[in-house]
Amino acid sequence: MVSWKNPDELSSFKELCSDTHRADLKTLMSGEHSAKRVADYKVAMSSGLSYCFASKAVDDEILSKLQALADEAELSAKFRELYNGAVINTGENRLVLHQLCRGQLGDPVIADGVDKHEFYTHEQAKIADFSDAVHKGDIANAKGERFTTVVQIGIGGSDLGPRAMYIALENWAKANNKLRMKAHFISNVDPDDAASVLKSIDLEHSLFILVSKSGTTLETLTNEAFVKTALKAAGLDPAGHMIAVTSETSPLAKSKDYLAAFFMDDYIGGRYSSSSAVGGAVLSLAFGADVFARFLAGAHAEDVLDTNPDIRKNPAMLDALIGVYERNVLGYGTTAVLPYSQALSRFPAHLQQLDMESNGKSVNRFGEPLSYKTGPVIFGEPGTNGQHSFYQLLHQGTDIIPLQFIGFKHNQTGMDTVIEGSTSQQKLCANVVAQIMAFACGKDDANANKYFAGGRPSSIIVGEQLDPEALGAILAHFENKVMYQGFIWNINSFDQEGVQLGKLLAKKVLARDCDGALRAYSELLEI
Amino acid sequence: MVSWKNPDELSSFKELCSDTHRADLKTLMSGEHSAKRVADYKVAMSSGLSYCFASKAVDDEILSKLQALADEAELSAKFRELYNGAVINTGENRLVLHQLCRGQLGDPVIADGVDKHEFYTHEQAKIADFSDAVHKGDIANAKGERFTTVVQIGIGGSDLGPRAMYIALENWAKANNKLRMKAHFISNVDPDDAASVLKSIDLEHSLFILVSKSGTTLETLTNEAFVKTALKAAGLDPAGHMIAVTSETSPLAKSKDYLAAFFMDDYIGGRYSSSSAVGGAVLSLAFGADVFARFLAGAHAEDVLDTNPDIRKNPAMLDALIGVYERNVLGYGTTAVLPYSQALSRFPAHLQQLDMESNGKSVNRFGEPLSYKTGPVIFGEPGTNGQHSFYQLLHQGTDIIPLQFIGFKHNQTGMDTVIEGSTSQQKLCANVVAQIMAFACGKDDANANKYFAGGRPSSIIVGEQLDPEALGAILAHFENKVMYQGFIWNINSFDQEGVQLGKLLAKKVLARDCDGALRAYSELLEI
Repeated sequence: MVSWKNPDELSSFKELCSDTHRADLKTLMSGEHSAKRVADYKVAMSSGLSYCFASKAVDDEILSKLQALADEAELSAKFRELYNGAVINTGENRLVLHQLCRGQLGDPVIADGVDKHEFYTHEQAKIADFSDAVHKGDIANAKGERFTTVVQIGIGGSDLGPRAMYIALENWAKANNKLRMKAHFISNVDPDDAASVLKSIDLEHSLFILVSKSGTTLETLTNEAFVKTALKAAGLDPAGHMIAVTSETSPLAKSKDYLAAFFMDDYIGGRYSSSSAVGGAVLSLAFGADVFARFLAGAHAEDVLDTNPDIRKNPAMLDALIGVYERNVLGYGTTAVLPYSQALSRFPAHLQQLDMESNGKSVNRFGEPLSYKTGPVIFGEPGTNGQHSFYQLLHQGTDIIPLQFIGFKHNQTGMDTVIEGSTSQQKLCANVVAQIMAFACGKDDANANKYFAGGRPSSIIVGEQLDPEALGAILAHFENKVMYQGFIWNINSFDQEGVQLGKLLAKKVLARDCDGALRAYSELLEI
Repeated sequence: MVSWKNPDELSSFKELCSDTHRADLKTLMSGEHSAKRVADYKVAMSSGLSYCFASKAVDDEILSKLQALADEAELSAKFRELYNGAVINTGENRLVLHQLCRGQLGDPVIADGVDKHEFYTHEQAKIADFSDAVHKGDIANAKGERFTTVVQIGIGGSDLGPRAMYIALENWAKANNKLRMKAHFISNVDPDDAASVLKSIDLEHSLFILVSKSGTTLETLTNEAFVKTALKAAGLDPAGHMIAVTSETSPLAKSKDYLAAFFMDDYIGGRYSSSSAVGGAVLSLAFGADVFARFLAGAHAEDVLDTNPDIRKNPAMLDALIGVYERNVLGYGTTAVLPYSQALSRFPAHLQQLDMESNGKSVNRFGEPLSYKTGPVIFGEPGTNGQHSFYQLLHQGTDIIPLQFIGFKHNQTGMDTVIEGSTSQQKLCANVVAQIMAFACGKDDANANKYFAGGRPSSIIVGEQLDPEALGAILAHFENKVMYQGFIWNINSFDQEGVQLGKLLAKKVLARDCDGALRAYSELLEI
């Protein structure tokens, strides 16, 4: 049995916080010896990726203290408890099983009377059969014509993750002859969101996926009604154009309103659901079930690496520990995610949800208030675009913001052009490595406007190309990093009570059951 | 003459910082009297908008101290110097004239031997004539067929602002029969960005706008070459499909490679250039010059309000002062921008650039290091989507993040549907007011997981509908807010030296003129 303790009860954490030793990033990354540091300070990930942390403000002494914290906090053992089926989500009394969609890491997990790995793989097989039939035209519209477009209706985890994954692979799929159906997403209750998507697609050849675990999410049911109205207005039968991804106990599960229903369960939170039927249905329809299987394989291979208790062999655990060091020892409150890949344009928004919704907590897993900082703010945009925008503050602002870069040797489309002796892809890569060095080492200048203090830490995940396996591995890396940080902070990373109060108050506004400022604001917006 | 001093030399600022009085937001926003606060604590903006700050942690006592700071820092007089043509951008020895594109606020501004207001309006007139001719088909492709698509090639300020403005008005334009040409944007040097846009459009009927002030921006020239290669491959003459937006002195200005050239100058920084030819060309082509003129009129009306020395009548100045109070007195390092409007989906990314690139500085306008914090990190996503994502941390995380909401009474498309007794637009509005109250007042709960501390400050900009005037007004509001914060912090908000070092190092990488860690990183990415 592991022991769940706040970090400030652990001697390794107290030692880390009281230690005045610091790694001088500028010195460590300057001069000839710095090449060796870049070679040494990296950890192999799966799918040919590496996690490189030479530009983080750590040295061997700090790393050994972080290993001690990993050991004393029993991080590896806690992950083992999780994947073996312990009730890790204590607040909601639930298991946490998203990794199990990707493969079996430990013992069989039996819940609700079934083997959960079998349950997830069974749903994947159902999705594969369904998407194959759609691609072959065996499942088609009322005229017997093939569906060409798939539209996911969902919000939060049912939207951000699957949307980011779709965008990440769309160009790869085109280049590799794998784009079976174009995907769109409707999420916001703003009626202009649904209206805009519906105007841009060919309704008669569109298949809609309604994603709601409970079958009661306000935005999603509202948008479903919006879509059904549009289908009927076009003379189409909604039941012939819709499938559901939901829990077996939801009202949607056995409804005749859907061509098919695929199941998820309470053991996978929305923000962790890209690996489940929530991501599986739309990605299998868009790219084929084989591509989704490759994505899961990449994620599973990463999960396996992330079980290792040695932080020099476990990239997610190491990343988590360095993040805690930056947050609780160095006092940095924000992290930027900066992929040098246009395909990852919505990946920072997904990580923002994953990290901030999981670890933005002020009580520990027993409901006790905390006296230390937990999850940071996460934001980001793709490079090189960000270089011409908010990087100014990252370089010369009054706060230090740790940076997470992601870069690939090869682009996805294979199209490129040589200008002034280099390809665009080479320019892209040259820019990311240049930025790492500029942030780490800065530059002296007699003109204070042109002076860069340096000492601004970053890490980079480097890969060959953003393909399905690499994408799965990167996703798993960050999910596991967030999980390990939650373990260190002794919080429950798998509930989200902070989203409830607003929902309740919105209902009161719509029922005109409110007074004081809330009523006054409602009048201001003429509700 | 105004006096440029650091705020810590001003007695009003010192008093603000040493004062222990705090406004208790939870108490102020609870109970019946809170309705009056909502009614009182708002300032009229132009175009029917209001800036509402009842949910900020300020009261009359703090507001009077902020007015004293505004007076002592001579904010209104500094803005007057700026719009009358003083060299406010001292680092680059330049005037700052973006407001002059929208209207004349003060004296005629003569620079480079011309009246600059006449120069900007002349360029607008040239753009209007050109876009009218394109819409009528008088300027057409080699076959005499109309151009249907416009593609902006630019990065940073030449991309984010115009793109955010286009997305903001696209659905409004469709609903009001104003969408003349569909717009696309190519920005990233990642070759997959250009490849993806080029694959999705009809090249033969596309007009490209190359935007580069100097005519030397690496990403933009690379993407131009990419586009030209594609045009030639399709048997088209690039010179018949391209226009340029550049400075009069750039190599692009008189080139035969472009159908036309429209001019900007050194007095408008990239991030402030949506009101110049940089935004004007693409927005006039997309929506018509009349729509762009309405956008400028809304912005100018806001500029006029923002000259007022009374903070209760000057929304941008008040917003700026409250932001400084939150940053320097309350110690909050991040601000979230949360528009409840899908049309504003990229507006936070634009504000992120505008604010972080302008005020992410560590030296004052004389190049002296500062001992106080300057610009915060800015991030955001549209609601209600964010509610199902990172709002968890905003509600229950260990840091307080001030929030900027934006909401409208009416949607843009006019399409809507009633579910459970309310429209989607009503649900959207109910959610934003519910969130404001949840953040301000929180909720007691015996279960610590469900406890909300409250006291989390926000403001909201409320409008009738997001139309061109309202969009212009909102843009001007934030530009002027950022300007006033720069005045208070005594920094130069109009240069961006922090983006230079990375560019230099990237050139060294591409020239293989580097060693140590930089060389090692380059090898890792196989450059």
